[in-house]
Amino acid sequence: MSEPLHIDILDHGFVELIDFMGDDRRCANAARVSVRGDTRERSDKADQGLIARLLADHHTSPFEHAVFQFKVRAPIFVVRQWMRHRFSSFNEESGRYVELVDECYTPAQFRRQVGKRMDYAFENLPPQENSELQAEVQALYRQSYDLYQKMLATGIAREHARMVLPLALYTTFYWTLNALSLMNFLHLRNHEHAQSEIRAYAAVMEDIFKEKMPWTHAAFREHWGTAMI
Amino acid sequence: MSEPLHIDILDHGFVELIDFMGDDRRCANAARVSVRGDTRERSDKADQGLIARLLADHHTSPFEHAVFQFKVRAPIFVVRQWMRHRFSSFNEESGRYVELVDECYTPAQFRRQVGKRMDYAFENLPPQENSELQAEVQALYRQSYDLYQKMLATGIAREHARMVLPLALYTTFYWTLNALSLMNFLHLRNHEHAQSEIRAYAAVMEDIFKEKMPWTHAAFREHWGTAMI
Amino acid sequence: MSEPLHIDILDHGFVELIDFMGDDRRCANAARVSVRGDTRERSDKADQGLIARLLADHHTSPFEHAVFQFKVRAPIFVVRQWMRHRFSSFNEESGRYVELVDECYTPAQFRRQVGKRMDYAFENLPPQENSELQAEVQALYRQSYDLYQKMLATGIAREHARMVLPLALYTTFYWTLNALSLMNFLHLRNHEHAQSEIRAYAAVMEDIFKEKMPWTHAAFREHWGTAMI
Amino acid sequence: MSEPLHIDILDHGFVELIDFMGDDRRCANAARVSVRGDTRERSDKADQGLIARLLADHHTSPFEHAVFQFKVRAPIFVVRQWMRHRFSSFNEESGRYVELVDECYTPAQFRRQVGKRMDYAFENLPPQENSELQAEVQALYRQSYDLYQKMLATGIAREHARMVLPLALYTTFYWTLNALSLMNFLHLRNHEHAQSEIRAYAAVMEDIFKEKMPWTHAAFREHWGTAMI
Repeated sequence: MSEPLHIDILDHGFVELIDFMGDDRRCANAARVSVRGDTRERSDKADQGLIARLLADHHTSPFEHAVFQFKVRAPIFVVRQWMRHRFSSFNEESGRYVELVDECYTPAQFRRQVGKRMDYAFENLPPQENSELQAEVQALYRQSYDLYQKMLATGIAREHARMVLPLALYTTFYWTLNALSLMNFLHLRNHEHAQSEIRAYAAVMEDIFKEKMPWTHAAFREHWGTAMI
Repeated sequence: MSEPLHIDILDHGFVELIDFMGDDRRCANAARVSVRGDTRERSDKADQGLIARLLADHHTSPFEHAVFQFKVRAPIFVVRQWMRHRFSSFNEESGRYVELVDECYTPAQFRRQVGKRMDYAFENLPPQENSELQAEVQALYRQSYDLYQKMLATGIAREHARMVLPLALYTTFYWTLNALSLMNFLHLRNHEHAQSEIRAYAAVMEDIFKEKMPWTHAAFREHWGTAMI
Repeated sequence: MSEPLHIDILDHGFVELIDFMGDDRRCANAARVSVRGDTRERSDKADQGLIARLLADHHTSPFEHAVFQFKVRAPIFVVRQWMRHRFSSFNEESGRYVELVDECYTPAQFRRQVGKRMDYAFENLPPQENSELQAEVQALYRQSYDLYQKMLATGIAREHARMVLPLALYTTFYWTLNALSLMNFLHLRNHEHAQSEIRAYAAVMEDIFKEKMPWTHAAFREHWGTAMI
Repeated sequence: MSEPLHIDILDHGFVELIDFMGDDRRCANAARVSVRGDTRERSDKADQGLIARLLADHHTSPFEHAVFQFKVRAPIFVVRQWMRHRFSSFNEESGRYVELVDECYTPAQFRRQVGKRMDYAFENLPPQENSELQAEVQALYRQSYDLYQKMLATGIAREHARMVLPLALYTTFYWTLNALSLMNFLHLRNHEHAQSEIRAYAAVMEDIFKEKMPWTHAAFREHWGTAMI
């Protein structure tokens, strides 16, 4: 394969598209097996129309026949939200087996909460305070990582030493999932109620989804509100 | 894509390999993300060794990053066993929407049960009796399909008319699943306790699996007895 | 346990509620663990309000903590639709192991299809024609079952003999699933586009769901259109 | 319900059994529906024998009809391993919604790694060094939590502030899963290769499993090595 699509996210993160199988037409044809119509060529318009109708009518199973494979690097507090999505496959860097890299997430812009917790409303910390807080947070990251290193130098097991590291630490994982599961992820995570950090990743993935499956993406944004897995 | 691999099975069935994503090396690399070793080239021997060790140690998640996509035609009593495998994606021909094709399975060789039901031991019906039974069974299939046709001619809904058709009727479906789920299927269905009809399909799929992922297949046959999803 | 709730459906079918774990309040409390509020007593109104808000906002995971267990007897063509619901647990009567019972489904009222297949519009067959068709269908069932019996008498393996039996044959299964998966089932199967036979079962299950979890049921019927698994 | 079974684990953790549905006999009867034998009373010996044979023969589906529900408090690095078990239901305390409690895990005994990482061999840190390291680690926990508190006091959003907290922080979750999924968890986590912290939880859960389903537990420990989901 050629060099995979690679998009940087946050201060040390990224999304790579490792592989992709199937496309809009594949899903349309998987649906058409129900009427033995999967082998006949159709017009683009017919495929687009069918895809829209399937999602509008909650016929979601055909979208399981397109599969995406990503490599992702993200902070642990983001990955913790991510791994709640069970209809997908994960393999992650292990702090039991390797020395973890000294990379923690520092927000470019810290947010203050405005209103109640379910309002999901925020305002930016003013620039001066923001810079000061960034420095303070990074000093703590430094101390945490220094203690981690010191423990490793003493021979402490990696699985023990890692527990002092912050939730902001970056980790890397492979993620394979079908288009239906991806739509569910995008619906919940590229959403105004999602934490902006995971949303940054989900937005990039929605762009990739849109590029690879434009008709399904269009139908998703039009009809998903009333569809379901 | 070029013409898909197509293998005929039983009297009217087949398996087609529609698509395949990932391979032995992909799974090895997904495993190596745990030690940040997924991007460095390795020798074939190193990959083979890793794959064997992963399955021997029940580290099965890396095998979810290779995905197979099949189109299958099989009798309904076979498909009923097949669809119990939940970690996979199905789309099937629908007797609600289309007129079903006049194809039912007649065994080339009827089997007598020998011993108790859990012995899974059988002997062939003698040739003369076998031919007579084939004729008798096909006469019933003919009557069933004639009644189905008559009901459709009277305007009876397809979803109602189909209920008179036998379990031997053929149906067609798309099936997408990862290599881990496929190994679980092969372990249970390409097995001496499985009914020989589903085993005929599973044997063909094991050949395809072996061709596409020879190292994983070798490790599967050596270690699966003690591995698990 | 006392005698389970048992409701007869169609001509030989039934639904039994074997067991149930958790209730509306359990799901509300599972949700409240997110704010460490699961151990404090609340008013009914507070629980009802929370449940409605959760479903309206697509926070569906708390509904996985209530579990239903059913025993069901239904025709095979109905059970084939049923077993597409993968987030649930099945164990079914096996035609490989036991002699199947002579019970097939005869519709009390055959339906003619009106309009196109996606209109899901039907009209009843007139009484005289309906009776005649019932008799004809039952004659075929009789012939099929007689051939099945004859094959068994000759020693043909049960797994072979069964293939001549019709899709209308009844089978029995255990079914365990959580409230979220049940809502998904009810949404798709207690629906005007579902085949009326499976809908008859789904309607009974919705009554049981409503009785056991009245607040979740009310929220389901109000908000599910925009919720999802 | 009466007061739930509650067992303390590590320095601030616990496991509570919230609820349980089904038992050994229920699973045996779910299996017996395959031969229409689920309603007849059997001897204990017959049930025990059937359960052992089912697991020995990889007939695992009947064990999905018993369901456990736990409430667990554990460090985040432990919970991260836990949530890889996808065939189960989680609801967790959310650092987006509530202020997290000042409780981090300090090992009673730090471990040094001996040999290679796949040897899973460890030795205890000598008492004096262990005490010093505990103090050092707790000082870092103190600093991390103080910065967290300071950020909250400035109005920083909880979801942002939490990222400075260590992986040793405790969190709480509800966990519902069937007996088959529990056996898979116990096989992998109450295992000499598992990290001792998650193993402490798994060992308690195995005790509960053994108490509630003694025959299935005995068969699990005898036959699981060759069984699979």
